[in-house]
Amino acid sequence: MTKEELIQGIASGDSRTLSKAITLAESTLAEKRDLALEVIAHFGPQDDTYRIGITGTPGAGKSTFIEAIGIKLLQDPTRKIAVLSIDPSSGKTHGSILGDKTRMNKLSAHERAYIRPTSSGSQLGGLAKNTRLAMLLCEAAGYNTILIESVGVGQGETEVAQLTDLFTLVLNPGGGDELQGIKRGIMEMADIIVINKADGDAERQANLTAKEYSMALHLMPTSTPFSIGSNSGWIPKVITASAITNKGIDVFWEKAFDFEKTVSQNSWKETHRKEQMHYWARKSVQDLLLSKLDHYEKAIVKGLEEGKLPEEIAKEIVE
Amino acid sequence: MTKEELIQGIASGDSRTLSKAITLAESTLAEKRDLALEVIAHFGPQDDTYRIGITGTPGAGKSTFIEAIGIKLLQDPTRKIAVLSIDPSSGKTHGSILGDKTRMNKLSAHERAYIRPTSSGSQLGGLAKNTRLAMLLCEAAGYNTILIESVGVGQGETEVAQLTDLFTLVLNPGGGDELQGIKRGIMEMADIIVINKADGDAERQANLTAKEYSMALHLMPTSTPFSIGSNSGWIPKVITASAITNKGIDVFWEKAFDFEKTVSQNSWKETHRKEQMHYWARKSVQDLLLSKLDHYEKAIVKGLEEGKLPEEIAKEIVE
Repeated sequence: MTKEELIQGIASGDSRTLSKAITLAESTLAEKRDLALEVIAHFGPQDDTYRIGITGTPGAGKSTFIEAIGIKLLQDPTRKIAVLSIDPSSGKTHGSILGDKTRMNKLSAHERAYIRPTSSGSQLGGLAKNTRLAMLLCEAAGYNTILIESVGVGQGETEVAQLTDLFTLVLNPGGGDELQGIKRGIMEMADIIVINKADGDAERQANLTAKEYSMALHLMPTSTPFSIGSNSGWIPKVITASAITNKGIDVFWEKAFDFEKTVSQNSWKETHRKEQMHYWARKSVQDLLLSKLDHYEKAIVKGLEEGKLPEEIAKEIVE
Repeated sequence: MTKEELIQGIASGDSRTLSKAITLAESTLAEKRDLALEVIAHFGPQDDTYRIGITGTPGAGKSTFIEAIGIKLLQDPTRKIAVLSIDPSSGKTHGSILGDKTRMNKLSAHERAYIRPTSSGSQLGGLAKNTRLAMLLCEAAGYNTILIESVGVGQGETEVAQLTDLFTLVLNPGGGDELQGIKRGIMEMADIIVINKADGDAERQANLTAKEYSMALHLMPTSTPFSIGSNSGWIPKVITASAITNKGIDVFWEKAFDFEKTVSQNSWKETHRKEQMHYWARKSVQDLLLSKLDHYEKAIVKGLEEGKLPEEIAKEIVE
């Protein structure tokens, strides 16, 4: 497809063109990536979208929760939802936490929903970077609500905070966050904590867990990390939810839109997105610099053979 | 001091000149560092030295052990010993694990011993890199035995393996390596494991611990990590020691020289040092590349203001 065809297809909201553009963005071939970047640059930033991160260990019921909140939101005819994933394990197996799309039956069948796992490609630190490009393409295609799913165990969960406006943590009833295999520091990043599976026998336990987290959150600073110098002005909320009984789904959106209203009014959302852009620009420069390392391998070996010191070799090569 | 004065002082084994040269190497000023590098380059590599890494958590008795083995080795009049340290905590406090020199009373008073903690300066990843330069300067000054002390908890212990020929792990009697706060993977790096403080009531426990480690080691591969593609051909040994009763000090040197004989004869020592040089050359190039990042800050901000994508900015800046 030509650049013009891609732009036209995306502008008309065609999901097949969107998928093709995302595949280009994930490509390891520079010319393909560049084509995708040109398409993204054509559309420019979409400031009126809502980017929501949803982190939780496998087994916390993220997929059913995402399906439930997605279906709920789509009752609003102005909403178009894209679900993307950051999964550090997908690089190894070429699988993904979203690979099994059947887990989101209803959502994936909906005409105003788009579901796509991100491939890391073989790019250095490419996972969240690729998700970012996929997100920008989805926004260009008119998806105004982006849900980014990540497992809270690797590096992805800290980078998901660099992609999204709202950070949601989905937990099982019972057990602390460390017991649930969530990395230290993740809880402090959450704007909304969802104690999931609050149904049947587990409901009482879920309520108890929610109470514990509420108390723990009151001991923490209210600023969102990774937004150095700014403060979202939002006090984190803990809710219970169940996709089966549809409990907490309304409450989630109520809190999520409260959050959006707060951070739009105090202009934190705008500031935060600017800081995120700065993060990704620095990261892009850093990754490009480090990608040079292998190109220098021959010069390094030659310098060593000539008996030069590592520091001399580095200076000669880089300067 | 001029370059010539530094070279002359070091060639004559003057420890005050050596200290000055190491301070230059640790400097954050490029011209000072460059002067130290020129001095190091003047002397070239000293292939006949023996570089010994000694890792263990604070409290394992590394200092008393080092003093004991140092004093013992200095009975050989051809030996000159330099003790250097890699301590990740020293950057914060400007202190060091070796700062309290009184812990090595006898050794520091000996005319053929030189003791010096390494300062990280403010250099990116500068700690082990600075220790490496200090080591090369000590070798140039005629110190043929280098003991490099590190706490096995941070990043230092993996880099100490990139500096030394022999990797020694000093442990307390009782408790596994993880119980003792040693990072996973360190045990597998050890060529000699010393169960220290094997005196009085603890002797029985030390023997038991030694037996357990011996058994555990038999389940592990015999190659030293970080020497990808080569194999030292050495089977790791576990010994017990006590600086107080002088137990195990002879045995340590017996094993240590067995090791050196083995890896000299099968030329692993030479190969390993070449691989280490390659590691430091790559690291130097990498650090120098990353040090550019801050220089690009203005260009990054300008690109963002112009509404460019992070990937575009990176490409424009780096290429």
